[in-house]
Amino acid sequence: MIETMRQINTIAEMRVHINEAKRQGKKVGFVPTMGYLHEGHLSLVRAARETCDLVVMSIFVNPLQFGPNEDFDRYPRDIERDRELARSAGVDLLFTPEVREMYPRPMLTNVSVATVTEPLCGRSRPGHFDGVATVVAKLFQIVQPDYAFFGQKDAQQVAVVTQMTYDLSMPVQVVPCPIVREADGLAMSSRNVYLSLEERSQALVLSRSLKQAEAWLAEGMAIREIRDGLIRMISEMPLASIDYVEVLGYPDLAPVDKPSKGDSIIVALAVRFGKTRLIDNLITTI
Amino acid sequence: MIETMRQINTIAEMRVHINEAKRQGKKVGFVPTMGYLHEGHLSLVRAARETCDLVVMSIFVNPLQFGPNEDFDRYPRDIERDRELARSAGVDLLFTPEVREMYPRPMLTNVSVATVTEPLCGRSRPGHFDGVATVVAKLFQIVQPDYAFFGQKDAQQVAVVTQMTYDLSMPVQVVPCPIVREADGLAMSSRNVYLSLEERSQALVLSRSLKQAEAWLAEGMAIREIRDGLIRMISEMPLASIDYVEVLGYPDLAPVDKPSKGDSIIVALAVRFGKTRLIDNLITTI
Repeated sequence: MIETMRQINTIAEMRVHINEAKRQGKKVGFVPTMGYLHEGHLSLVRAARETCDLVVMSIFVNPLQFGPNEDFDRYPRDIERDRELARSAGVDLLFTPEVREMYPRPMLTNVSVATVTEPLCGRSRPGHFDGVATVVAKLFQIVQPDYAFFGQKDAQQVAVVTQMTYDLSMPVQVVPCPIVREADGLAMSSRNVYLSLEERSQALVLSRSLKQAEAWLAEGMAIREIRDGLIRMISEMPLASIDYVEVLGYPDLAPVDKPSKGDSIIVALAVRFGKTRLIDNLITTI
Repeated sequence: MIETMRQINTIAEMRVHINEAKRQGKKVGFVPTMGYLHEGHLSLVRAARETCDLVVMSIFVNPLQFGPNEDFDRYPRDIERDRELARSAGVDLLFTPEVREMYPRPMLTNVSVATVTEPLCGRSRPGHFDGVATVVAKLFQIVQPDYAFFGQKDAQQVAVVTQMTYDLSMPVQVVPCPIVREADGLAMSSRNVYLSLEERSQALVLSRSLKQAEAWLAEGMAIREIRDGLIRMISEMPLASIDYVEVLGYPDLAPVDKPSKGDSIIVALAVRFGKTRLIDNLITTI
């Protein structure tokens, strides 16, 4: 079933393989990543394998979605290790373009999505979601997937890509997949490697506070009080510096004062531990 | 060869036909229009017929590309006539979505192209090319053409769509086709129907001045003098009100002072006759 994985560096070669797969009527599943793979990424590959005939993963650290003072240069990379992990998880085509292959000339085209990009990471990271929407639009044109798999840890990214796909009638089904956590609750992230032992230990407050938020929501506590309570919990960690703590409607990411029964709510956190900015979230229905 | 044309109003039905055509390995040619068809549009259909197995035409007056004081509401429409013209020119699928089919909810996604949108119509019609890029991106996702045919009368539109297609690696070949003119030289346009007899007669200055510009370019006259000469020629028409007269590099639409041998140049005009804004252009190589 799973043959040998092929690594592809150029758009032209991807097209040849994708056209051949399409001619054969294969369903193409796509897992776009920035590499430095962890169990979260691999869970997306397994989800793709279940529904698709050809599983394509991209590894591309996309400069467009990093701000000038962000970690593009030091973002962790390990293509040897990634290749092994991708192969054993069942990737058929591993697309690993260089920046000059994706952006051979200055990129003049920009895809932007309004409204859902305004709060949360959109506010903290100006231009970030333009970079995400633009690269995902481009990757979708190259890979032409029937299904594309994204982790819910980047819940706002899922919302942005879903909105773009809907608005532009892209023939792609966006499939959000659950957050994968370490045994102690820390959400898997390529950036976890940046953490010192002490930072990592204090970062457990994120998953702990989301659990607490879930309990508070179930008890019917007011949104504002929940938010205040979470800020207090996280602030108890001396190494934590809060970027945002928000409780919003999902998937529209609009403010909610008093949720009604049946409403979907996202509790979203972005907190710095030392130089490392971590995000985590919980989506639940009242 | 040409079977009966099918008219399709929904994205879902288009997908069914396009998927079937793709499965059969058919090359899809696409002619996006705003309807009120003329010989210019039909020449695009004929170009598509020559290279493609399935010819799709869309007729959609796209509100996104009209400014608040422009002619969206009064833009000429005649679907009965268009259907007959499209059928006899060899269209296989005529896609005629309503606005609420294309934009059922507020459009939150915007595709914008920098640089080539700045001069000419981009300056006169703020937001116009965002609307064009966004709707063409969406139509490309729906129709999934191998080739898309555009008239060179809208030369800047061709430049914008070509740039977008390149930047986003869309699997579409953009094919620019020559301007089609009336016997007296007036470039074909759906908006010509707005012109009074007197306006129409004075509008012939556009093609006449482009011919003059071509001669001047061949003689090596300075760009600045050519521009001044064209402005004088057009201003002699009492009903003409100049929006712009520009001589730029092509296809980058950058200013040129002294073109070198082999440079491509566009002479681009936008002039109002009464309430009707007409554009015309000439692309030539020095």
